[in-house]
Amino acid sequence: MAFRFRPVDTAFYDLFTESADHLVVGAALLAEMLGESADHADVAQRMRDAEHQADETTHALFRRVNSTFVTPFDREDIYRLGSGLDDVMDMMDEVVDLILLYEVRTLPPDLSQQVEVLQRCAELTSAAMPKLQSPQSLEEYWIEINRLENAGDKNHRRILASLFSGQYKTIEVLKLKDIVEALEGAIDAFESVANTIEQIAVKES
Amino acid sequence: MAFRFRPVDTAFYDLFTESADHLVVGAALLAEMLGESADHADVAQRMRDAEHQADETTHALFRRVNSTFVTPFDREDIYRLGSGLDDVMDMMDEVVDLILLYEVRTLPPDLSQQVEVLQRCAELTSAAMPKLQSPQSLEEYWIEINRLENAGDKNHRRILASLFSGQYKTIEVLKLKDIVEALEGAIDAFESVANTIEQIAVKES
Amino acid sequence: MAFRFRPVDTAFYDLFTESADHLVVGAALLAEMLGESADHADVAQRMRDAEHQADETTHALFRRVNSTFVTPFDREDIYRLGSGLDDVMDMMDEVVDLILLYEVRTLPPDLSQQVEVLQRCAELTSAAMPKLQSPQSLEEYWIEINRLENAGDKNHRRILASLFSGQYKTIEVLKLKDIVEALEGAIDAFESVANTIEQIAVKES
Repeated sequence: MAFRFRPVDTAFYDLFTESADHLVVGAALLAEMLGESADHADVAQRMRDAEHQADETTHALFRRVNSTFVTPFDREDIYRLGSGLDDVMDMMDEVVDLILLYEVRTLPPDLSQQVEVLQRCAELTSAAMPKLQSPQSLEEYWIEINRLENAGDKNHRRILASLFSGQYKTIEVLKLKDIVEALEGAIDAFESVANTIEQIAVKES
Repeated sequence: MAFRFRPVDTAFYDLFTESADHLVVGAALLAEMLGESADHADVAQRMRDAEHQADETTHALFRRVNSTFVTPFDREDIYRLGSGLDDVMDMMDEVVDLILLYEVRTLPPDLSQQVEVLQRCAELTSAAMPKLQSPQSLEEYWIEINRLENAGDKNHRRILASLFSGQYKTIEVLKLKDIVEALEGAIDAFESVANTIEQIAVKES
Repeated sequence: MAFRFRPVDTAFYDLFTESADHLVVGAALLAEMLGESADHADVAQRMRDAEHQADETTHALFRRVNSTFVTPFDREDIYRLGSGLDDVMDMMDEVVDLILLYEVRTLPPDLSQQVEVLQRCAELTSAAMPKLQSPQSLEEYWIEINRLENAGDKNHRRILASLFSGQYKTIEVLKLKDIVEALEGAIDAFESVANTIEQIAVKES
């Protein structure tokens, strides 16, 4: 690796990695929520706990930005990446929360495909964070996340069509649509993180 | 206060304050709209007037950015903060407009709690603007807005659950959900303003 | 024109123009989709092709940002403008896709007004791109886009009110509302492009 002119505070990379690791936990809880015999209230409580831990990591990151003179990349980008990771957690928490809130017991089977996309995004993001020191090396990661987002988008549209195919009561359609859209929002939030990293790589190049 | 190296054009702070003051007016009109005997068409007209005045303040701000050589902080941040304040007004205007448009006469009583959150956000934002010259001094403000947004989010989810509890016809649920979501959008827009100010403070530190 | 201190790679302007030209094609396909005897599957397929071509232009733009040492304006702004133009295409594609997906045969007649707004936005954006070398000269363009967005917003609210006027079944309202909102999203995406250009002009001034 080339000589670096800027001293690097590796704690930032550790915090981004910690933040992404929370997303792996969140995606697993989401998968559990979709299980047939899941205790919705219990899973939702554990999701809330995971979301609080993710918040603490985000705040630790922002405190460090405030107290560090030389940051590994632009302060605003650290802020944006930290917020972006936090947004994913919020969206996954919202999916779980809506399932509990709307008292939905039967979910369309296709939803599990979207959760698989989310789990894959979480793993890739978690694996990418420790390599953030050389952002240009992460091209494969952001291309793959974009590919997953496209696949998720196709699933999403197929699920929407099935909701409107006449097999659900209108009030059920209304509930399920919110859940399905929150799932897609979580996948989009992963893409937004990947785009931020791509932009950081562009700046550094 | 420390010696400043950059001459400061205080007109920017006056315009931000003016912009936030419009939000106090908007939040009050929203509260009036929810009153039992409110004349919806009349309140909506006054809301539209308030929104036009807010627009004019925003444009005065942007014209000043264009014609000023040295700005108190980054041009883009002035632009973002001005747009952010304007977004809040647009969202509050949308709530009022939807109530008129959908001809909704009976609103869930819990909505008034959300409007209280909005009014509190408007007051805090209006009180914060004159102190924007030392953005780091506004930490309490952005923490409190974030707390209010969390409280608003909890209200929002409880209201959503009540909409789906079976007491409303499906077409009513559809209407009320839009209104409830626009209200939450307005609270989120206040949070977004607070986050922008936090980021300005981070940059200046 | 004044002497420029920075050498200019005109390929960027060509790519932005190409990108905006795809939007003119997309808006025309959208208008075709609304025709009474339109073959929905066929138009949707051509829209998908147009969307892929737009993607390729966007990627060519991003590759060039990565491989060019001196860019005509900030890398991040090139990135944002490219993404913004791409977002418009995605939104127009979504409208067409939803009409196909939901198997909607009868659309409210007012929708054609929204598509006219979109077509006008596409033409103006396409005409503006070749003049991007002097962004301050584009003030009329962004003012007109903002005016069109306001007109579109008024249409949008009127269409929403008609959806809830009692002439549609609730499940139809749910479908049409998604389509109507995606249309408005496309208009908003044009406004967002115009705002980005205004911000570039502000920075350059």
